[in-house]
Amino acid sequence: MTRKIIRPKTNKKNLIIRRLSLYLRTLDHLKKKGVEVISSSHLEKIEGITQSLVRRDLAEFGTFGVRGVGYNVPLLREHISQILGFDQNWRVVLIGAGGFSSVLIHSESFQKRNLKIVQIFDKSSDYIGKSIEGIPIQDMAQLEQELDSRHVDLAIIAVPPPEVQHTINRLGHIGIRGALYFASRPVDVPENMVVLNMDITVELAVLTYQLR
Amino acid sequence: MTRKIIRPKTNKKNLIIRRLSLYLRTLDHLKKKGVEVISSSHLEKIEGITQSLVRRDLAEFGTFGVRGVGYNVPLLREHISQILGFDQNWRVVLIGAGGFSSVLIHSESFQKRNLKIVQIFDKSSDYIGKSIEGIPIQDMAQLEQELDSRHVDLAIIAVPPPEVQHTINRLGHIGIRGALYFASRPVDVPENMVVLNMDITVELAVLTYQLR
Repeated sequence: MTRKIIRPKTNKKNLIIRRLSLYLRTLDHLKKKGVEVISSSHLEKIEGITQSLVRRDLAEFGTFGVRGVGYNVPLLREHISQILGFDQNWRVVLIGAGGFSSVLIHSESFQKRNLKIVQIFDKSSDYIGKSIEGIPIQDMAQLEQELDSRHVDLAIIAVPPPEVQHTINRLGHIGIRGALYFASRPVDVPENMVVLNMDITVELAVLTYQLR
Repeated sequence: MTRKIIRPKTNKKNLIIRRLSLYLRTLDHLKKKGVEVISSSHLEKIEGITQSLVRRDLAEFGTFGVRGVGYNVPLLREHISQILGFDQNWRVVLIGAGGFSSVLIHSESFQKRNLKIVQIFDKSSDYIGKSIEGIPIQDMAQLEQELDSRHVDLAIIAVPPPEVQHTINRLGHIGIRGALYFASRPVDVPENMVVLNMDITVELAVLTYQLR
């Protein structure tokens, strides 16, 4: 299998996408409170991103907002949601049924973003055959037989670190296009697959650096 | 209580710190494999960060490496570890004893970075009085009496999203200087406290944007 290097998270486009995602959650919050119109300085106050950067980020994707008036909250929310792909449904497979999975399944933000967990796999007989929120936990040994890339868009990988690379390889072989994993180690990414990593020690370094 | 806006994650220094953290885990990996010397192009291959950026990042903190030879793995690892503050011990309190906490407690990277969970609190009677890995779970109602900021450096907040803000306020009042939370919502940060957020939907947006 040909491999490519995992994409750096510091990629400029990715940074804009992450900020859009922060604006989106602020807009969710404002919409819930019934706020109809906001200024870019209001977005700044909430997420700590400078007003000019907010304007520039939004300008990348078209003309929103009316000068001197501000942005229409429900419309801007809908636009950003569309840019990020959250206007469509995403079918997610969870690999690993441990503690982390049940946290995700009960996550309020998952539902808000049209992310739906459709299948769960685990290798442990403690889990196989049981179910979480009505979704049966299937045997990891049967992954190739039971997981069909036509019915699943994304994978979330919550397995022990030594099993992450092998799991990514299997998912790539099945044709799953995107995955997120949590282990604190680099991986090789199969071609035609986008793999992202969330690493708690990377975030904690930002804390320990500032507090040391 | 005076409040300040949460720091943007896109802060330039934070980006360098995050990349250093990625180099560190690559160096861990190389050290384990017995590799003694590497070039900056080798670091690039593993984490997908350009060679010139690796050089610039490291140059920010002093002179490492020998031209034409490369970096000494154990030495560079030690240096970066020191820059990030991982050469000292960090005493961590976990707020919330649910699924996520047991994932963290068993995390290999936690131990590797000298992060030690010393106390756990939860509000549920299902957990209070039990223990995880020998650490008793204390009653959240007793937080102010039982948590002493002289004995704890950092908090990891794994409570339901509606309880995050209140939890941060209480920790700030006790004098805890740093915290990481996972909920997908913005918070106000007490003065003299550094609060970071890890939000799975922000990461997933980077995936859905690329795959939509």
